[in-house]
Parts: sequence; C-alpha cells; structure tokens
Amino acid sequence: MKKERTERILREMEHKGLTQMIVCDPYSVFYLTGRWIFPGERLLAFILKTEGQHELVVSRLYPQAPDADFHVSYFDDCDDYMGLLCSHLDRSKTIGVEKTWQAKFLLRLLELFPETGVVNASAIVDYARMVKDAEEQELLRKASLLNDETMARILKEANSGLSEQALADRILAIYNELGASGPSFSPIVAMGKNSADPHYMPQDAVPQYGDCITFDIGCVLNNYCSDMTRDVFIGTVSDKQREAYEIVKEANLRGIEAAKPGNRKCDVDLAARGVIERAGYGEFFVHRTGHSCGLEDHEFGDVSSQNTDIIKPGECFSVEPGIYLPHEGFGVRVEDLVITTENGCEVLNHYPKDITVLPFEG
Amino acid sequence: MKKERTERILREMEHKGLTQMIVCDPYSVFYLTGRWIFPGERLLAFILKTEGQHELVVSRLYPQAPDADFHVSYFDDCDDYMGLLCSHLDRSKTIGVEKTWQAKFLLRLLELFPETGVVNASAIVDYARMVKDAEEQELLRKASLLNDETMARILKEANSGLSEQALADRILAIYNELGASGPSFSPIVAMGKNSADPHYMPQDAVPQYGDCITFDIGCVLNNYCSDMTRDVFIGTVSDKQREAYEIVKEANLRGIEAAKPGNRKCDVDLAARGVIERAGYGEFFVHRTGHSCGLEDHEFGDVSSQNTDIIKPGECFSVEPGIYLPHEGFGVRVEDLVITTENGCEVLNHYPKDITVLPFEG
Repeated sequence: MKKERTERILREMEHKGLTQMIVCDPYSVFYLTGRWIFPGERLLAFILKTEGQHELVVSRLYPQAPDADFHVSYFDDCDDYMGLLCSHLDRSKTIGVEKTWQAKFLLRLLELFPETGVVNASAIVDYARMVKDAEEQELLRKASLLNDETMARILKEANSGLSEQALADRILAIYNELGASGPSFSPIVAMGKNSADPHYMPQDAVPQYGDCITFDIGCVLNNYCSDMTRDVFIGTVSDKQREAYEIVKEANLRGIEAAKPGNRKCDVDLAARGVIERAGYGEFFVHRTGHSCGLEDHEFGDVSSQNTDIIKPGECFSVEPGIYLPHEGFGVRVEDLVITTENGCEVLNHYPKDITVLPFEG
Repeated sequence: MKKERTERILREMEHKGLTQMIVCDPYSVFYLTGRWIFPGERLLAFILKTEGQHELVVSRLYPQAPDADFHVSYFDDCDDYMGLLCSHLDRSKTIGVEKTWQAKFLLRLLELFPETGVVNASAIVDYARMVKDAEEQELLRKASLLNDETMARILKEANSGLSEQALADRILAIYNELGASGPSFSPIVAMGKNSADPHYMPQDAVPQYGDCITFDIGCVLNNYCSDMTRDVFIGTVSDKQREAYEIVKEANLRGIEAAKPGNRKCDVDLAARGVIERAGYGEFFVHRTGHSCGLEDHEFGDVSSQNTDIIKPGECFSVEPGIYLPHEGFGVRVEDLVITTENGCEVLNHYPKDITVLPFEG
C-alpha cells in the first residue's frame, strides 16, 4: 500500500468526520494500493477506515498478493457480494463513496442500509490525487518527453499525403516503438474544416493546400498520461488563420503564466480566455481552458471559469485554449501540460509553438 | 431513433408502472438513438417517457442532428446540468435509472428530489438489448467471421517464436488489416503456466516445448463484438493436457447443445459444468460458463448457475468452459459465441476445435 497517500486521505476523512469510505475507481485503487484491478461489471471496493482494518473486496478472478496494510475479501460470481461488502461497513456511521460508483451497487447499498447516510466523498480522493508527489511528477515528465518526441516525428509526416486515420495509426505505432504502453486517449488528427470541431475523430481526409491540421495526442508511460496539441498549416497560411493562431498561442502563454500557486484555476481560464475575448473571438472558444492530468488523461480539477479552487504546488493540468471557426473552415488549439511549482509552473511540453507551414506535397 | 427498440422498452416501462427513465450508458443510448456519444465525466441522459417528449440531455460539445422523435437539451461546462436534467423529470413519479449511472449524478438527484423514488430500472433496457433483432444478428455474424479468420491467421504464427505480447500486437494488426474497428477487449495470449490464469494479460513469455497457448480474442466490426477462445499445444501434448482439453471441448459442446429457448441460462452452465465436474475437475473451472455479447463484449445476461432466466430466440452469448491447473502449469478454455434460434442455436464461430499440436520451432 502507498502509505503516505493513504494517510493524507485518512486525515482528510477525519477532518470531514467520515470514518469509512468506499474507493471503487480502478485508478484510485491503484493510486492507493499499487494494484491494477479492472473488474468490469463486477464489484471492486477498497474500504478505507479511520479506525480498524482497511478491506479490499474483490472478485476471486483477481487474486491479490498479501499486503500488511489491508485485508482482502474475495467473492465468487455467484456469491452475495453486496452482503459481503456490507459486513465490512458500520451501518451506524455515514459511508463515503466515490463519484463513479455505479447505481446498481449504490441503490442496493441504500436498500440494505436504509437508515445510513451515504455521501459522495470523492473530493477527498480527488484533491489528494490532484497534488502529485515527487514520484508522480517524474513519471509525468517522462510521459510528456515521449509525447514531445512523438509530436516531432509525426509533424514531419503531416504533409506526406497520409490521411487523418493513417496519421493517427502512425502516432500509435510511434508510441509503441518509443515504449509507451499506449495512447492516453484516441489521437485527434483533424484536417481543414474538421479542425473546427474540437472533438473531431480522424477519418479519411488527406491534406489539402491551405489546410490547418490539428494534432491532439497523448500517451501513457509507466501508468501516467501526457497530452499536447499542436497545429500545422499546409502550403500556406491565410491572414485569418495566422491571426487566430497567434491569438491562441498568446492565450496559451498567458494561461501558463497564470498557472501558479495562490491563483485560482479560474484565473488561468480568465488569463487565456481574456486574450481571445479581447481579440473578439470569445464566442469561438467553446470549451474550458484545461483539465487535470495524471493516472488518467482527464482527472478531477478542471481549468474553467467556474473553478475557484486555489492552485497548490504539484498540480498537473493542461492549458489548451482554442478558436473554432466552422464558417471559415478551420480551428486552432495550442495545448501544454504544466506542473505547478512553489511559485510558478514547469511546462512539460517542449515542442515549439512558432507558426509552422509545411510544403504542400500534393 | 430506433423506434421498434424504443417501443419495446416503453411497453416494458408501462408494464412495470414506470413513466420516466434515465438511460445513461453510451451503448444503450446508441442502441436507442443510433448516436455514439462518449461524454467521459460529463452527464449524458436520454430520458424516456411513456407520455410526452423524450429528451436527450447532453453537453454542447456533442452537437446532435435533429431527430423527430426526441428533443435535445444542451448544457455548457459551467451550466447547472443537474437542474436542467431535473427540469425534464416529474418529481412526483418514480424515476428509473440505468445500473451504471455514476454516484455523483445519482446522489445529487436524490438531494434535489428527496421525496422521489429512484430505482435501478436497468433490467428493462438490459432484457431488451439481450434479444438481438435481425440487423444485430447479421452484424454479430460478420464480426465472428472476421474473428474466425483472425484466429486462423494467428494460430499459424503461434509457434514462430513471437512472445505473448508480440502475438497480441499481431492480432491487433490483423484486425486492422481485415477492417475491424478494433479489439472488443485486450487480446489474451497466455503461454505455459500463464494459461492457468483465466484473466492473464500477455507479457514477454515465448513458446516452450510442451506449452499450452490460450488465445482469447475478439474484435469490433460495425459496432458489434466477437469473442472466441482456442488453445494450441507446442511440440507435444501431455496425457494430462489432452485429458483436460478433451473434457473442456466436450463441456463446450454440451453447453452449446443446451443453448436453446425454453432452457434457462443455468441449464447451459450446468450442461458444461457437469461434464467437468463428472470428470473430477469441478474445482478447477473457476468462472461462469459465459456472458452475453453484442454492442459490448460483456453484456447483461451471464451464463451461470445462478441465472434462472429462460432463454429466448435471438440471444447472443458465449459458451466458454475451462480447466485451470496452476500446479500442472497449464490451463485450457474453449469458447464460442452462439445466437439462439427458435429451437436451438447457431454457433457463430467456425474455427475447428480438434486438439492441435504445432511443431516446436525453438
């Protein structure tokens, strides 16, 4: 078990008057135990207790090596696993659960313990996971270095005539070759008008003269994620494209400047969004400025106008403003991951952001 | 919208006295609307109503083409999306939710509507999805044909010296080449003692003389899944291996024989398990006999001793008995998908099950 991480959470539970909590998210369970258990539709419950034995309730399909710091209770597919879970809970005390716990388990728990308070206590785990310890920071740095290298390689092929999907496949192949365990999300390669859709998935478009191509890519290395976006222009860059790109790049830089302890997450959003709004493109920046990143590409802690949480040292999040102009047939986004330090932040991505025009090879 | 599917569900809601239901599972939403929306941490709620307008509540990040049969309500990241959701619900009537709905939404709904009953109504959608219509059956057949072809190709390479992980990568490459959109689960390639673990994930083992190698693989084609397991032996097959294999093959065949309307799911389990138990290996068949399969590899409707549901025509599930002998250093499993017909079943996999010994190329 990861003792220091667990103890941070137990202290916070005590602070909130919570004596027991069900951790169910496989990423949170890994964070606390170092064990990967993906139970699919089956129950996974790591019960943390401020007093008494922590208990891992898990299907026998996932046998666990013993651990001095928690006990393991197994169930078979045909056992009453909810009864087993309840046998390790105190029905006279409020039970905290994680936010992703499935309704089938939660509604059954409410049935079995009708008098017991059940609360969404995810914030306790989420805020703990949001501040990365030294080991995590080092792994995040390495994942982003590999992502930098991949971006450098794929941008050399961006104008080679490969389709969006073929480039996405190449990105996966490069990750594999460089030793990543896989992508942290399905790579986005969006050409021309497709780049105006921030959630576009690669299809069969090939580069055309005058296209903007957006690459939003990330890998998983040693369980930690990377995530970066760059754009290139093919053959030429129009005045409109250049204007939008330079505004977005400036927004990215101002966002990064605001990413420091003492500021709030919404200050980062405001710093980036302000640049875009002042340039008259506010309505075309249609998403939040960023999201936290760690074991998962999207973690708790969004960088949005609504998030007034004060930033602490050791947080890792993306700064990814964009301008999307479907009526102009393009969009641009510039994204880096940062880790906040004592008085600023370290940018994990090093691939340049200067406007890049590749020759049209059509 | 898929009207016939929706109407089956609405009839069942009426039958159960439920007037409103929140469908949240992206696969269920696709099943009903034909739209793929994977909203990650964001709310996705397709509200089905026995009277009045169906409502899709979704982030503005996922713009939807209009549909005559339902209305779409969008929210931005900073909007009160739970308030929006509740504005489309009748607080005086019980609300059905799907089993996978996240605790963060469910606990908030219970807070906002403290007097309203909320029930796990997944069974309504699950039982509908369990019976595949003609369009779905045809897609399932095609996905399994592609899986047959992939199994044939990969087994030719099983003794080529490639590691488990390299073979798993080859499987993904073959799927890609044959036009599958991807695997339906991470391919299992387990050599020697690793084959004794039914949930083993490929690592760096290479074939050794006397190894059993288990291949449990599946792909997604046109949104539908395949899933099949075969074993091969390298260089030789011991008496113990042959005995276990023949028992498991017989169990698979008896299970398939029992897969017919009128029987219960547990009868299929019993038919397969009985063969293994009578041969004295009951304690080494450590999992259920199978699971339903469709848009997802694992769907509602397990083939286990506890499931007394009566089988209907049009169901698709796996029959996959196994014997796992860690102390002997091997395990075997034989798995096919079937679709039940009016009076029996159609086996979707055609790759042979005769015991196969490949020359050791070490």
